[in-house]
Amino acid sequence: MSDWQLNYRGFDPAQQGLRETLCTLGNGYFATRGALPECAADQVHYPATYIAGTYNRLTSHIAGRSIENEDLVNVPNWLSLTFRHPDRSPFDPQHTEVIHHQFDLDIRRAVLSRQTRYRDEQGRMLRVTQRRFVSLRDPHHAALETTLVAENWSGPLTLQSAIDGTVLNAGVQRYRDLANDHLEMVSAHQATPDTICLLVQTSQSRIAVAEAVRTRLYGTGTDMPEERAYVEHDRFVAHRLDVEMRQGAEVTIEKIATIFTSRDAGISEPSIDASNWAAVAPGFDTLLDRHLVSWRHAWNRSEIAIGDGENKTGRVLNLHIFHLLQTVSKNTVETDAGVPARGLHGEAYRGHIFWDELFILPFLNLRVPELTRALLRYRYRRLDQARYAASLAGLSGAMYPWQSGSSGREETQRYHLNPDSGRWLPDASHLQRHINSAIAYNIWHYYQATADSEFLRFWGGEIILEIARFWASISTYNRTIDRYEILAVMGPDEYHDAYPGADTPGVDNNAYTNLMAAWVLARALDTLEALPHRRAEELKEKLGVSAEELNRWDHVRRRIKVPFHDQGIISQFDGYEDLDEFDWLSYTERYGDISRLDRILEAEGDSTNRYKVAKQADVVMLFYLLSPNDLDELMMTLGYEWGADLMERNIDYYEERTAHGSTLSRVVHAWIHSRTDCERAWEHFKDALVADVADVQGGTTREGIHLGAMAGTVDLVQRCFAGIDTRADMLFIDPRLPAEVSHLSFDIQFRGCQIHLDYLDDEVSLRMDEGLSPVSVNVSGVAQELAPGCSLRFGL
Amino acid sequence: MSDWQLNYRGFDPAQQGLRETLCTLGNGYFATRGALPECAADQVHYPATYIAGTYNRLTSHIAGRSIENEDLVNVPNWLSLTFRHPDRSPFDPQHTEVIHHQFDLDIRRAVLSRQTRYRDEQGRMLRVTQRRFVSLRDPHHAALETTLVAENWSGPLTLQSAIDGTVLNAGVQRYRDLANDHLEMVSAHQATPDTICLLVQTSQSRIAVAEAVRTRLYGTGTDMPEERAYVEHDRFVAHRLDVEMRQGAEVTIEKIATIFTSRDAGISEPSIDASNWAAVAPGFDTLLDRHLVSWRHAWNRSEIAIGDGENKTGRVLNLHIFHLLQTVSKNTVETDAGVPARGLHGEAYRGHIFWDELFILPFLNLRVPELTRALLRYRYRRLDQARYAASLAGLSGAMYPWQSGSSGREETQRYHLNPDSGRWLPDASHLQRHINSAIAYNIWHYYQATADSEFLRFWGGEIILEIARFWASISTYNRTIDRYEILAVMGPDEYHDAYPGADTPGVDNNAYTNLMAAWVLARALDTLEALPHRRAEELKEKLGVSAEELNRWDHVRRRIKVPFHDQGIISQFDGYEDLDEFDWLSYTERYGDISRLDRILEAEGDSTNRYKVAKQADVVMLFYLLSPNDLDELMMTLGYEWGADLMERNIDYYEERTAHGSTLSRVVHAWIHSRTDCERAWEHFKDALVADVADVQGGTTREGIHLGAMAGTVDLVQRCFAGIDTRADMLFIDPRLPAEVSHLSFDIQFRGCQIHLDYLDDEVSLRMDEGLSPVSVNVSGVAQELAPGCSLRFGL
Repeated sequence: MSDWQLNYRGFDPAQQGLRETLCTLGNGYFATRGALPECAADQVHYPATYIAGTYNRLTSHIAGRSIENEDLVNVPNWLSLTFRHPDRSPFDPQHTEVIHHQFDLDIRRAVLSRQTRYRDEQGRMLRVTQRRFVSLRDPHHAALETTLVAENWSGPLTLQSAIDGTVLNAGVQRYRDLANDHLEMVSAHQATPDTICLLVQTSQSRIAVAEAVRTRLYGTGTDMPEERAYVEHDRFVAHRLDVEMRQGAEVTIEKIATIFTSRDAGISEPSIDASNWAAVAPGFDTLLDRHLVSWRHAWNRSEIAIGDGENKTGRVLNLHIFHLLQTVSKNTVETDAGVPARGLHGEAYRGHIFWDELFILPFLNLRVPELTRALLRYRYRRLDQARYAASLAGLSGAMYPWQSGSSGREETQRYHLNPDSGRWLPDASHLQRHINSAIAYNIWHYYQATADSEFLRFWGGEIILEIARFWASISTYNRTIDRYEILAVMGPDEYHDAYPGADTPGVDNNAYTNLMAAWVLARALDTLEALPHRRAEELKEKLGVSAEELNRWDHVRRRIKVPFHDQGIISQFDGYEDLDEFDWLSYTERYGDISRLDRILEAEGDSTNRYKVAKQADVVMLFYLLSPNDLDELMMTLGYEWGADLMERNIDYYEERTAHGSTLSRVVHAWIHSRTDCERAWEHFKDALVADVADVQGGTTREGIHLGAMAGTVDLVQRCFAGIDTRADMLFIDPRLPAEVSHLSFDIQFRGCQIHLDYLDDEVSLRMDEGLSPVSVNVSGVAQELAPGCSLRFGL
Repeated sequence: MSDWQLNYRGFDPAQQGLRETLCTLGNGYFATRGALPECAADQVHYPATYIAGTYNRLTSHIAGRSIENEDLVNVPNWLSLTFRHPDRSPFDPQHTEVIHHQFDLDIRRAVLSRQTRYRDEQGRMLRVTQRRFVSLRDPHHAALETTLVAENWSGPLTLQSAIDGTVLNAGVQRYRDLANDHLEMVSAHQATPDTICLLVQTSQSRIAVAEAVRTRLYGTGTDMPEERAYVEHDRFVAHRLDVEMRQGAEVTIEKIATIFTSRDAGISEPSIDASNWAAVAPGFDTLLDRHLVSWRHAWNRSEIAIGDGENKTGRVLNLHIFHLLQTVSKNTVETDAGVPARGLHGEAYRGHIFWDELFILPFLNLRVPELTRALLRYRYRRLDQARYAASLAGLSGAMYPWQSGSSGREETQRYHLNPDSGRWLPDASHLQRHINSAIAYNIWHYYQATADSEFLRFWGGEIILEIARFWASISTYNRTIDRYEILAVMGPDEYHDAYPGADTPGVDNNAYTNLMAAWVLARALDTLEALPHRRAEELKEKLGVSAEELNRWDHVRRRIKVPFHDQGIISQFDGYEDLDEFDWLSYTERYGDISRLDRILEAEGDSTNRYKVAKQADVVMLFYLLSPNDLDELMMTLGYEWGADLMERNIDYYEERTAHGSTLSRVVHAWIHSRTDCERAWEHFKDALVADVADVQGGTTREGIHLGAMAGTVDLVQRCFAGIDTRADMLFIDPRLPAEVSHLSFDIQFRGCQIHLDYLDDEVSLRMDEGLSPVSVNVSGVAQELAPGCSLRFGL
């Protein structure tokens, strides 16, 4: 693979936010955000870090109502490091002229380097070079190395190495009026002569967070200070040192940081562990070496090489993998963390968990299945909360929330702001009950990829059964049409949250919701077959699932309603055909980018509810998640006419009516086109690829990368272009390489075997590098055995 | 199986402690201790509960020195319930005459019932009937149902239903002078009109613990109070209600409790979750039904039926299994909990983790392997701490501590009290480095039983390699004898902590330690073979294991020293043969029970170090852990003469010199005799079986059951009498049923298959009730396939 070093030169505050979004340095445990607030001073101090899965309760007063949500918590900023002449302003962009600024992100090594040159009013120039990383190997450790050179002067300089707990959730402009300060001081202390420690606590969730920092100085030709001052304020602790700079001589400041929280296993107390481990930590170079070994191993498993004549494609694709590995890593397995929609990168969506796993787990299933298992167990731990939500709604089984946080309760906002109109609007998106099918789908596909029957027995089966039960109970029988219906929900397309002019939210019989419910009910019955008989009986007894209830599941999955119109177009929901067609042309002319049509229309006093428009894939999600065979079977079981020609007509119909207002939408459309129209698939793929790199939504990237969309591009390459599918104890390979792609290669792990895949010109070759037993491989319909140490070749 | 109801009648305070030790009601998450302090009032209030794996730092001043250890934390007592006439003393054993007291423990249902009748000075009689359980199904929930009947009077009665956080660690007499109060008040509140909540925090480890209690009253023919008073003191919260009792009418008080701590996953904040869930919890009967279903499923997997003509054998054996299931259950998988030596039952050893898993995991491996995996991951989470301990000692790899708590650091006491002499004595038992081999052994045997290569790849392999590395680095080469030596350690026999009169602790070349080190080194090399090649290379790179280092491992395992004397007796350690023989006869005559010979001799100014005596199995542990084949191979590799005849001679030699001062000792001796002398094996087994039930150590049971010894008796039945072993992808069955046992049957799970075993008269039958594929079975040397749904029969 070509150079993975991403370089940025110059210093353009307007572009800074975007550039820094590429710079997340974390590992699913202890992440350093890249998105910078506008305040220039922060550009040297660096913003705060935050903890995966750590939330605080946020009570806001919006539109005169009190709204309570969970909010992400930033942890104290361990990167804080300032330098100034005695009695003068610090060298930072706010107070001093910046004559050069460059930073480099090495995604292969996960190290961020920066170089800045300052010139003060007296013309004195200071060069600041930094390297930093959050260790993948030692998840409680991070390190910052800063080298200073006084280029054209000598004299005293005061350094302050701090842990700053006065961090705010200020990363998202439109949230700034909400409560954004979540930390309370507990204590601070100097643990050793060169180690300081700050212990804070989140104000509502009472999670203790301790950080310790060991600061050491190294220099050539410079007197190193022997004394340092210990500084302590509310939520702030620092060491202050006076250095005598000599022209041209380097002074290196090594900051080794540790972080522990009260949720960590295997500790005594967070501040004790943070102090102890910081005091005895190895130096920067040793920690870095260890970090690099772990990243090398992670890349061994995860790298995708793609050749399409452009360096950029592979680089961005692997940048997406990089962000994925930053958010979820081996270290995630030890935490109770889900996959937030914006990764660990930005504050948008407050760190809430949506359905993004649906796009992320396919990659992990074939790389690090232990991680999928851990992420599915995150859902299992919230099963009781989902059961409670169902019972409150008068339903059975488990009803997982559309947005959730640490407690697993519904965290979807009840009001949202339209920045275009300035109005706060009721938000019904918690009615996206389809997230339950996504969770069941993830479990079933993990099981297909790994044959991990222990997981199904112990955790996964129970979730699938409870979700099936929820679908059966929310379905109501309509005697008139002799069909079951699911009323008053929202589909994935968030442009339709009610019928035009209706007082109550939701639409009826969203086709995606209903068909996926039927799919889940079928898989629940499969699950009972797949489980050992005794375990199946135990589960039924534990959950109180009777034979009559199983009959109802079977009946619902055979008789749920799917609305149609125009001879074979699946209606997105009941009554969709009665909506008006939208005047795409005139709106595009008037507004240019109309991907957030909901905001535009609401500002005009109109509503997307009135039109045949979609923010993102809804009906077509079915073609993304289900194979043509699966869908044929579902439709046949339901007694509906269906065929491949109809699928194409549906795709065309909905694509004409989609605004792609979500970054995920293009991923889905690329996928569905790959079956029939490789050119269009490739175009959508390229669009999806640059969503964050080019910040196509105009500012949302600095609020956090779109992890689902990033992972979706990787999934596209794996599942769609490379054509990999796992089912029926077999590895299916049915490639659909776009003409632009001349070469593609990567490794997968399938049921304990490690397989290397290579697509070159018109040939696919597979090599099982390791494995205990042969696996069945089906390439473009031809089945064969692949044995350990052996290779197979197929023409495309 | 016969009646599992254990009944105790009468009220004998002297016997009360012992009886209550049978009454642990917990599930590995939220346990109710049985051991009662002497204070009679507590006999109705019940003592506190405590949390698995939650420790607090305890600083004590012993013999003029400050000693810091981790101490178990009791959580607030949710059982607190008192009743009194207005303005009179409460009805409790301290203030009122007890005319009847009985309690029943139903181990099949894990429900404790009690009935007490009081008569006050006026002759008024009150009957109190209670049922209680800590739910296995809903691990945050517990319930207490109390029914009161005023037998011969009517009138007002004041009830107080409390959560009492003023609990002390007072369960062990000899610890009472140490710090024993570990909770600090945070807050209390009334969450709903019938729900109260107390939030406390452990004083050093800062773990927040919230309990909530919902109290409801039900009665027939009695006016139920509509009002209740809310009472709040420091660390105490209660609801107080006035009831009008009518003669003969029942008043039932239902207390539903919840507990959450800051270490729990999937919560918002402990007191919020405790309050919310208590307020909406189902009633006693529904919670109980759910609890019973879970216990029924647990027993399906775990019950052992044994017929030896005595009801007691099976009942006590299953009581041991009951305690095991109370301490570690499916719920343990979600906690960071190890297996404490006294289970969750008593405060002795402060809840520390020793090597007891060695005796406990064999049972779990073949029942709930997910649980073994979780318990081994508890060790993995403390691998960095073990590495640090090794590096502090100037060694490589990982050195796990003999006793440990939440942080994984060494917690072995440095001084211990001899109650016979009243002297505090230096304690060198942290030198029991052999615990490292036990951990490696557990991992290897879990892998053998389950073929779980994912675990080996992800967690287990790394621990085995780091322990091997530790053994290689602690071994020193002695040029004179051309052998490696391990100096200054302690073996499992704690009677020898130094050479007679020596200033420094430890003995050299403890045979058990050295041979197990050789075994671990061999398994480490096997591990590198068993791992996928790439993973093996990655691990070596991660840990920095070089080819030279591997050579050294191989060299040490071939050349480590094993001391011998008397033509084939393995010396317990270098110089053992020079120790004096002990005058067993005269000491037995003088002292009766001499199982704690160390205390007796020390009180006389003598020391066990001078004699050929053992507290418990040391050399003979080798015969317990290693098969004759394994040991032959180890000895051959080392170039020592060895054979079956020598094993017998060694067993006889050491049995004559063992005091059985540990409850584990008889388990080991029963096992080793089973190979050659079934009668003696059966005697030892029966002795081991009653260790806690009869409190053979005279008082230690009330300080907590001996979980390792309990599990050891179960392991004996499974591994020794039933002769089950798993290795080389095969299920070996080589029964050695004592003549007394006419029938034995139980289920096991082997590599995902569920197999029922039945030993009746001279026949063994195996039936695979479930399984995906056949397994290889080797019964008494004859290999066969056992397919799903099929049976096999063998003569014994």
